[in-house]
Amino acid sequence: MLNRVRSAVAHLVSSGGPPSQRPKSPDLPNASSTPPAASETPKSPPARPGSVVGLPQKTAETRASFSRPTFLQLSPGGLRRADDHAGRAVQSPPDTGRRLPWSTGYAEVINAGKSRHNEDQACCEVVYVESRRSGTGTSREPTQKQGLCFYYWGLFDGHAGGGAAEMASRLLHRHIREQLKDLAEILQDPLPPPLCLPSTPGTPGFSDPSHLVSPQSCWSPQKEVTHESLVVGAIENAFQLMDEQMARERRGHQVEGGCCALVVVYLLGKMYVANAGDSRAIIIRNGEIIPMSREFTPETERQRLQLLGFLKPELLGSEFTHLEFPRRVQPKELGQRMLYRDQNMTGWAYKKIELEDLRFPLVCGEGKKARVMATIGVTRGLGDHNLKVCSSTLPIKPFLSCFPEVRVYDLTQYEHCPDDVLVLGTDGLWDVTSDCEVAATVDKVLSAHEPNDPSRYTALAQALVLGARGIPRDRGWRLPNNKLGSGDDISVFVIPLGGPGSYS
Amino acid sequence: MLNRVRSAVAHLVSSGGPPSQRPKSPDLPNASSTPPAASETPKSPPARPGSVVGLPQKTAETRASFSRPTFLQLSPGGLRRADDHAGRAVQSPPDTGRRLPWSTGYAEVINAGKSRHNEDQACCEVVYVESRRSGTGTSREPTQKQGLCFYYWGLFDGHAGGGAAEMASRLLHRHIREQLKDLAEILQDPLPPPLCLPSTPGTPGFSDPSHLVSPQSCWSPQKEVTHESLVVGAIENAFQLMDEQMARERRGHQVEGGCCALVVVYLLGKMYVANAGDSRAIIIRNGEIIPMSREFTPETERQRLQLLGFLKPELLGSEFTHLEFPRRVQPKELGQRMLYRDQNMTGWAYKKIELEDLRFPLVCGEGKKARVMATIGVTRGLGDHNLKVCSSTLPIKPFLSCFPEVRVYDLTQYEHCPDDVLVLGTDGLWDVTSDCEVAATVDKVLSAHEPNDPSRYTALAQALVLGARGIPRDRGWRLPNNKLGSGDDISVFVIPLGGPGSYS
Repeated sequence: MLNRVRSAVAHLVSSGGPPSQRPKSPDLPNASSTPPAASETPKSPPARPGSVVGLPQKTAETRASFSRPTFLQLSPGGLRRADDHAGRAVQSPPDTGRRLPWSTGYAEVINAGKSRHNEDQACCEVVYVESRRSGTGTSREPTQKQGLCFYYWGLFDGHAGGGAAEMASRLLHRHIREQLKDLAEILQDPLPPPLCLPSTPGTPGFSDPSHLVSPQSCWSPQKEVTHESLVVGAIENAFQLMDEQMARERRGHQVEGGCCALVVVYLLGKMYVANAGDSRAIIIRNGEIIPMSREFTPETERQRLQLLGFLKPELLGSEFTHLEFPRRVQPKELGQRMLYRDQNMTGWAYKKIELEDLRFPLVCGEGKKARVMATIGVTRGLGDHNLKVCSSTLPIKPFLSCFPEVRVYDLTQYEHCPDDVLVLGTDGLWDVTSDCEVAATVDKVLSAHEPNDPSRYTALAQALVLGARGIPRDRGWRLPNNKLGSGDDISVFVIPLGGPGSYS
Repeated sequence: MLNRVRSAVAHLVSSGGPPSQRPKSPDLPNASSTPPAASETPKSPPARPGSVVGLPQKTAETRASFSRPTFLQLSPGGLRRADDHAGRAVQSPPDTGRRLPWSTGYAEVINAGKSRHNEDQACCEVVYVESRRSGTGTSREPTQKQGLCFYYWGLFDGHAGGGAAEMASRLLHRHIREQLKDLAEILQDPLPPPLCLPSTPGTPGFSDPSHLVSPQSCWSPQKEVTHESLVVGAIENAFQLMDEQMARERRGHQVEGGCCALVVVYLLGKMYVANAGDSRAIIIRNGEIIPMSREFTPETERQRLQLLGFLKPELLGSEFTHLEFPRRVQPKELGQRMLYRDQNMTGWAYKKIELEDLRFPLVCGEGKKARVMATIGVTRGLGDHNLKVCSSTLPIKPFLSCFPEVRVYDLTQYEHCPDDVLVLGTDGLWDVTSDCEVAATVDKVLSAHEPNDPSRYTALAQALVLGARGIPRDRGWRLPNNKLGSGDDISVFVIPLGGPGSYS
């Protein structure tokens, strides 16, 4: 993520001094190591709603200085080439090895030097969910179906270090699995989900089946809750539990920095696209573009941030004002009238400048330069628990949300052809590539490959990454139109909507 | 507004007792009286950003028990017929009198008995804005253009009494005018608006022209602010000042209850549609439906309300929880697991029921029965400063927002035909009429009238009101499909998009 955490803003906020945020070497399990055993599954705090109890807390171990996704199967030499800012070789899973699940295409490239290593991470897995409630405690017909599977894709764009992105790439899908364990039977039952369940078997307060509350016994009006909304809730809680785990483990294991997270879960016929940050997902279906996410930035979340600053002014310290101004207010302008916006406004109006308007605005800047507290350019994601305002002890985390927006796409509602794809990309792609340009590349590359060519989706991912990176020319990476390409890390998944293995 | 404020929810929250909210006779200037002189323009608090100082505060006087919009020109007998719940005669401006500005069509009907009087109010005016900054204090070329005009339409749907709706119908456009006075010259100047202006001439701290800050003198990056966003900001601030005026005057003049406000301002080629509440505006253009507002209800604003309850738990007292459950939690369910959603979630998850989950949920119910604090079914609007939870002193106003969402439609971007209209309606219309049904009625009625027939838009408004009211049959007001018509007050404006007088 290019310049997303601005570490040299001292002149804006105070008198200067070294930035307090610096990438540190994360101290986490190596992503290329053996998958953790059951005892390494994520720990949830016992008192949290929807959380899972009884799992051990330790998940970290010492690791090498950096890593890339295991599915790239990089040798030590390959790892060095992937880490080379000068060459910026595009990386994809080897043709010879086991393909990614669901015929997924993937490609990535390291940044042009803005951080020491590639701070993007990726994960693509098929995850089996064992039911935790096997046959106990419902008034329904006993069912033979117990576990279920989901397909999972995750892109994690790190900032201020690679630790959070790496940790999320190894653990977030396990948090999702833990959340789904309670729901495995319910999701496979055609009846509407029960609104109330007995307490967990074996824990104090467990009531026998005669205490079960069936929907019919309610005296008050009740809402219908869909299976789909249970999966959405499970993903939302998994993001929060992942973030809480980072908070717990950050001291012992130096999980420094934070990351945007864009995750897709395929479960029972539906794609759940969960986004927290400024990565983006779009579907290209029969040439049509269907947005599957929106970006969360200081600009798009201005009113949420300002409202929080207004309701909790202590979070602003004495340094910031929750009001937005179109430019910095200068002391000599006291008493004049300047344009401003508060948490309730989308338009602008003039106000008389008072002393506290001279404070730095909570939200400032435009486009890629927009910042919260002059520091960070994304407002949702995981981690960032140590992030402070430069030369200050003021924490920024209270303004950041770990919750994704989840959009659902029902794969069964449309007959998809082999050229219909879901494209996920970090902002390195989208900074220099429009949705329409991606759609044009999809058309160009896929029509040049046979529909049953298993390499076509990887070729498409590579073309997208190459098109955003450009080629070295005139002392920079440049696109065919001679504009600068993206100097950021770039990572792309291409998921064919025809289903797992349909066209390979 | 039918049952929007639920006054008999004592059994849900506590042990009962008489509801604390009752419509009272508002004590305001009669809408049919002489228009107030300049000294009756709204007062703004001196210290508020964007506010206007120096206007007298007194605006109210004793009035009759109820009133209808002056443009209906109702005689005492007509007023009695308009107030008759049994007949429910549809009211429109007389054919013989002066037509409404912009060839606007209007129709209304009283409710079927849910409140004593029609609690909807309406306003349609051409408003002249005199510039407050005539020729002083800018570094620009002096301009001859000083004042400007705007067209204005307002629908106000009252609840718990008619006072707030009546006050808003008489004063909100004047607040908008006051806000625009400062902008009159700026809006007519093709240059971008200045970010900073000298302090108001004549007030302490006024700096001479040499202190002016032009955009070029800024050292820091600056945002471009459009003329359009200044108008949006002016409308937003006018809503807030109107609400503050109601708060100030509520004790002396019994401005009881509250109202939804849907307002359209036409200024310099653009329609600004501002909505706070559950009225609705749609454009029908060449048969196509373009939504120009969205409704603000406990369901659509659930997460905003829950966030406020979470951040400021004192606003919930000991009676409410910010969590939502799909139905009421019962004491015997303690320790069991029930579905819930918090302020961050759009999906549902299970949580173990604890003691404080037995409190009543801040947001409950579905559709027209959704309520905040078991009391009110809309979450934005004006007034409601006295609204308390039934049998409690807990105020509800902190959860209500007076800010509208403003959408802008540029009339110059499309060649409109005489059948293109903007339809505004209170929820009495939309509760029983879909957008598509409105579009069908637009087509049917307008094609039955000549394009230059000046009565066609009133005929359309009448058809829409009649179609929502139905006819008396089987002990109720029924639609042709035998379903119940709306028993609520119904008010409709039809604004032809061809411009003022184009087709008459």
